[in-house]
Amino acid sequence: MRAVHQSLDIAAILRRAEQFSPRREVVSRERDRSLQRTTYGELGGRARRLASALLRLGLEPGARVATLCVTHRQHWEVYYAAPIAGLVTHPINPRLHTDDIAFIADDAGDEVLVVDEAFLPIYEQIRDRTPFRHVVVVGAAPDGLLGYEDLLASGDPTWQPGELDEWSTALVTYTSGTTGRPKGVAVPHRAIALHALSSALPGWLAMRDDDVVMPVVPMFHALAWGWPYTAALLGAKQVLPGSFLDPASLLELIEGERVTLTGGVPTVWMGLLSALDDETRKFDVTSLRAALSGGATAPPAMIEGLRNRHGIPLVHTWGMTELIMGAIATLTWDLQDAPEDEQRQHRYAQGVPMPFLEIRARGDEGLAPWDGTSLGELEIRGPWVAREYLGQPAGGAEQWTADGWFRTGDVVAISERGYIRIADRAKDVVKSGGEWISTPALESALMDHPAVAEAAVVGVADEKWTERPLAVVAFRPGATATPQELREFITPKVARWWVPERIEIVEAIPKTAVGKFNKRVLRDQFDQDTSKAEA
Amino acid sequence: MRAVHQSLDIAAILRRAEQFSPRREVVSRERDRSLQRTTYGELGGRARRLASALLRLGLEPGARVATLCVTHRQHWEVYYAAPIAGLVTHPINPRLHTDDIAFIADDAGDEVLVVDEAFLPIYEQIRDRTPFRHVVVVGAAPDGLLGYEDLLASGDPTWQPGELDEWSTALVTYTSGTTGRPKGVAVPHRAIALHALSSALPGWLAMRDDDVVMPVVPMFHALAWGWPYTAALLGAKQVLPGSFLDPASLLELIEGERVTLTGGVPTVWMGLLSALDDETRKFDVTSLRAALSGGATAPPAMIEGLRNRHGIPLVHTWGMTELIMGAIATLTWDLQDAPEDEQRQHRYAQGVPMPFLEIRARGDEGLAPWDGTSLGELEIRGPWVAREYLGQPAGGAEQWTADGWFRTGDVVAISERGYIRIADRAKDVVKSGGEWISTPALESALMDHPAVAEAAVVGVADEKWTERPLAVVAFRPGATATPQELREFITPKVARWWVPERIEIVEAIPKTAVGKFNKRVLRDQFDQDTSKAEA
Repeated sequence: MRAVHQSLDIAAILRRAEQFSPRREVVSRERDRSLQRTTYGELGGRARRLASALLRLGLEPGARVATLCVTHRQHWEVYYAAPIAGLVTHPINPRLHTDDIAFIADDAGDEVLVVDEAFLPIYEQIRDRTPFRHVVVVGAAPDGLLGYEDLLASGDPTWQPGELDEWSTALVTYTSGTTGRPKGVAVPHRAIALHALSSALPGWLAMRDDDVVMPVVPMFHALAWGWPYTAALLGAKQVLPGSFLDPASLLELIEGERVTLTGGVPTVWMGLLSALDDETRKFDVTSLRAALSGGATAPPAMIEGLRNRHGIPLVHTWGMTELIMGAIATLTWDLQDAPEDEQRQHRYAQGVPMPFLEIRARGDEGLAPWDGTSLGELEIRGPWVAREYLGQPAGGAEQWTADGWFRTGDVVAISERGYIRIADRAKDVVKSGGEWISTPALESALMDHPAVAEAAVVGVADEKWTERPLAVVAFRPGATATPQELREFITPKVARWWVPERIEIVEAIPKTAVGKFNKRVLRDQFDQDTSKAEA
Repeated sequence: MRAVHQSLDIAAILRRAEQFSPRREVVSRERDRSLQRTTYGELGGRARRLASALLRLGLEPGARVATLCVTHRQHWEVYYAAPIAGLVTHPINPRLHTDDIAFIADDAGDEVLVVDEAFLPIYEQIRDRTPFRHVVVVGAAPDGLLGYEDLLASGDPTWQPGELDEWSTALVTYTSGTTGRPKGVAVPHRAIALHALSSALPGWLAMRDDDVVMPVVPMFHALAWGWPYTAALLGAKQVLPGSFLDPASLLELIEGERVTLTGGVPTVWMGLLSALDDETRKFDVTSLRAALSGGATAPPAMIEGLRNRHGIPLVHTWGMTELIMGAIATLTWDLQDAPEDEQRQHRYAQGVPMPFLEIRARGDEGLAPWDGTSLGELEIRGPWVAREYLGQPAGGAEQWTADGWFRTGDVVAISERGYIRIADRAKDVVKSGGEWISTPALESALMDHPAVAEAAVVGVADEKWTERPLAVVAFRPGATATPQELREFITPKVARWWVPERIEIVEAIPKTAVGKFNKRVLRDQFDQDTSKAEA
């Protein structure tokens, strides 16, 4: 007799979906905009067959299978096929600079690349700098490359995964590199299983089998890449929007598939709000019970607009490459009868971390009390928080404390109830006259002005105060305002000494590959003293 | 730097409760019926102090701390104190025969006993046969024994747990021994953590911080003993009913504390239904969102009576010592618009197993298909299913298959959706003319008769059919019926050849220590051929 506890692995998640939800749908938007309908039963069989085909390529355990794909069913299949074969899926953000893509493919040692036909030009630019032994094309494969369906057909349809070690690596993901070279995180099977269980709990995603889940952020994003697993484990229907992420296409899917749960960055919801406000075309969005927003702080005016004008509950969430999703801003028991204003303040926060995640905020004088106002750098630990970076690049170890907590780089206040409120990124922090100024709070206040489309705040050197905030603003089409008007608009909303003396007007604010404001570029452009800009 | 993933342990659960829910209440009924109100903050501090006091007794890692207690806050404290100190809590059922109590205390090697003052007579009967080095009394301690509060006061209030191995044993529990000597199961920290996460998911307990949770089954029972951990992890309020389990006392607590979730065996709900039907005293039970029923099959008439007359959703659940809770009969997505009758049939089943539990039914000719009718013995595996019995007593290993699945002893059909429906206990099965007869189905049909209070069915030897069912029936006070009337009543409800030729009338049906019908006693009493009775 060999009786072992079953391990927490992705093969178990796939078995769950195949056995308990074989007829539950997965809907995938194709390149021609048509909707492809499949089921967990079909996808499971294809993922297992693809796994055996990958092994027949001669890959050794732990070999990396990179992807350059949008959110579609083939991408979903690779998320399962590699890990259940003992290989590792490495989703790459196609919007990164090709130098960065080449760097991380090399750093990870990617042996296989699965690439959308549309992204072949990226492959052409990096092929000489990358270790790929096999390139698999979703779509029409040029001579010399493998077709995805051909590869899959070469697999054994009866193949079943063997025993997996839950500590072995299932996925590799890279940080977006806003603060230096991208750093790789090896995510073990176990971390994905635990994240799925904890994030689906009623106080967080509250995901169950009658949900219809649509990720809008791409599948390499920390807000999204756990969902293929979480939704399959729970038996929820999945909607994969492909490359059509414009508001109308998304609204069509929400209406047509009765989406209940979706997640994206604030700019996505901003676009959706505009499309809904523009009543030339009506959409039924009553199925939505939560639109999760992560990656940046959502402006209150947008949250209230979605909620009050269209009945869409925008829910803040917080996550990082190093821990996947970490917190969701639902209301705790003692806030459910609280005044609307107190509820709103908590909905604007990043939320309470999921069970088994532990947090603390480290200020200049030790750990900050949980009083909702004392600031410190957020440190976190838990059973699925990364312990180290791949190959631990220079400076990587500094992101962990001596006792093993991950230093997030977010400056936060923690409330008595455990709500995290991000005041700033430690790297972006503005410290003026010895006091921290919250740049997201200033940005939110500015973006509440009807003429402002985008606003970013950075710190610039100042002789008297060491540093002062500088705001960069882009207007909506046809709208405008003077810096003085903007200052007057925000003065009632923030501390008086926070109000920036300098407000610069630009056409558009430069963004990083994951859609965040690129503050490094702004500092380079506007700050005389560039000592804070990173190498 | 030593950066390790945090382990899945009970110390992490207690930290969660102390940090995120310090003011959430735990209400405990005292011996004088008064309600003691405390909080996770207070209980956490006391549990840590008790842990340090236990260590100061000189106990080595892994030492067993037995309990003979009802469901109260001190018992709750021991559930945490021993495991976070690297010791093991061993809850014992005080209703077992003293020979069995002495056997399992000796088998487990219990070094400490925490005993309610009310159960001291049990201790007196077993003391000479047990290895206890320290006896701690909740209540007034006789000379020579330790007082619980005195022991606790000797601990260090600032003590914090060290690192724990998630695979180390946190609890030991014993099977109820209906089929032989009780067998011990060592439950690792990790199993409790995973059970908490999976059972709290929206499709199962759906537990969150605004719940008010009251276990009615005692804390050693598989339906109850996970709750102190699950509720604390989620921050739900807990109500501990002490020794007052009569319907009026329970209804008072449900009404007064606004209980949302409770769990007990069917006889508890039968008593509650009678008390609610008897309208001399009204109770407000509108807060209840689910009354879980496990340990035996609940009769449909009772389920419908609670639902239709009092708005209480009785929800079937299934569990075992070897896996804690395993399934809950909520409705899956594709049943939510199903006809009432189809919904009812699924509510009467034992439910769908929680994520990461895997099931199969083994019939005479291999694995049975999931068609809702094919019968087989239920086999189960998963990350928190036991792998072996403590010290693996003779015959223990037979309960696991060669490939490591636990053989539950339940004969079940599994539906296409994965619902388990228990047809019978393998040990209790009646096989007549080569076909299985479901004794719970016969019992349910008989208990639906208005005159019948209890009905149990056992198999008796038969020359022609090898075996035939024999029914034993107890009537409600003042009610009666003839065997022929009962046969006519059930004939439309079951297969004609199932109808028992022999129906015996008794005053009351003998029960086991956990309140189940004791079929061994019935067979001894009524069957001429006692070959099926166990040694």
